Amino acid sequence: MNETLKIINNRRSVRAYTSQPVTDSEKELILNAAFRSPTAGGLMLYSVIDIADQGLKDKLATSCDHQPFIAKAPYVLLFLADYQRWFDYFNLSNVEPRAKELNRPFRHPQSGDLLLACCDALIAAQTAVIAAESIGIGSCYIGDILENYEYHRELFNLPPYTLPITMVCFGHPTESALRRKLTLRLPREGLVHQDKYRRLDADKLKTVFTDMETQFIAGVHAPEITNAGQDVFFRKFTADFAIEMNRSVNKMLENWR
Amino acid sequence: MNETLKIINNRRSVRAYTSQPVTDSEKELILNAAFRSPTAGGLMLYSVIDIADQGLKDKLATSCDHQPFIAKAPYVLLFLADYQRWFDYFNLSNVEPRAKELNRPFRHPQSGDLLLACCDALIAAQTAVIAAESIGIGSCYIGDILENYEYHRELFNLPPYTLPITMVCFGHPTESALRRKLTLRLPREGLVHQDKYRRLDADKLKTVFTDMETQFIAGVHAPEITNAGQDVFFRKFTADFAIEMNRSVNKMLENWR
Repeated sequence: MNETLKIINNRRSVRAYTSQPVTDSEKELILNAAFRSPTAGGLMLYSVIDIADQGLKDKLATSCDHQPFIAKAPYVLLFLADYQRWFDYFNLSNVEPRAKELNRPFRHPQSGDLLLACCDALIAAQTAVIAAESIGIGSCYIGDILENYEYHRELFNLPPYTLPITMVCFGHPTESALRRKLTLRLPREGLVHQDKYRRLDADKLKTVFTDMETQFIAGVHAPEITNAGQDVFFRKFTADFAIEMNRSVNKMLENWR
Repeated sequence: MNETLKIINNRRSVRAYTSQPVTDSEKELILNAAFRSPTAGGLMLYSVIDIADQGLKDKLATSCDHQPFIAKAPYVLLFLADYQRWFDYFNLSNVEPRAKELNRPFRHPQSGDLLLACCDALIAAQTAVIAAESIGIGSCYIGDILENYEYHRELFNLPPYTLPITMVCFGHPTESALRRKLTLRLPREGLVHQDKYRRLDADKLKTVFTDMETQFIAGVHAPEITNAGQDVFFRKFTADFAIEMNRSVNKMLENWR
């Protein structure tokens, strides 16, 4: 197995960082790699906010579902789906009067543009994560940045045609963070479909979720929760943060209609 | 620069493939790597359709904005944001009656769950792309899979809580595909913001888009298009495929409201 595959296959999310800073030249390598990522039509429909201010990190540690380690991350990047830059450039390029003259349509960014911009942003984020890993810097995605849109919009001055799609904390991992067991993955048969999607029936679902069920039984859980499906449903899918995430994203989408 | 960074920094999208097949063990390496990607809460909110059937590839070459090379790609993976598997497992786990007994809320997947699932799917896709690159296999993203939702839904049997967020064509690159010039990227100052988003004013926009403007001037374009902003606006942003993509995505989002 080559170095890159080893890096990918041995990666675990890192939430505990040593006091060693992420240097400017390390940041440079990570960002340069991210910006070479494939991007739809070469348009780079994303931006990155480099969050160095400790006050901002402290706030994010609260607003992103109360995860104190965010405040201690040496390097934090917020990835935005971003059509604002291009839309502003369109306006600067007089596209609206030109469209009128040419009798062609004018329009604003919409939900399809948004999903394409999310693709760009996430492809860049994962490239940054793998690049960081290759120089010994661990990382953890913060999906909770999808919550509390109005608060984050204010905090980061986000214009309408941007959307905070993900955030990544980076830092040199502690010894124990490196030794953490690799987390469970669903088996291949539940993830790959040949030529057409084949919805899993009850038997197949049971097979695919066997390891999760085993892990659930071995773990600690509230007495009223009797299986792994209920565990995820109550602890994640209908938890306060998930309800908030859906409210927040619904609000974000209003700009793209 | 280490091997992984070299791979990332030298990658170009590959649309021309040799007749050398992608072997089963190569596919195995690519998928194994993808499935080790970070995933929100360990839930793996995505699926992959391995499209081997030539008839399907031929259809995609038409439905994804008429790109004949798709039909010639040795290995094609469709990445779906997928909450269907978990939602079916929730139902199998009797979450709805249990929620009623416990006086807790029941809900269906919504737009926030969708964006989180898109994160998972795209993180896995980019991991697959980098893994492939590391074993000499080139790739090209097909963002146009966001178009013609109803047609693709039928073609791949997609249930409501799945969304085809991206597709990737893989294959061994031809000599000329490998020699293709690296495509242009916007300069750092247009992409990275320190602590807060700073919208680019006219002067900054001009600076950031200078290379694009130079490339536009050097290229071939319709006489009625007078600058790079108009070029992208008319040739991409308001092209038929972009209008269709937004219609299609709007339709997709209906399932997640």
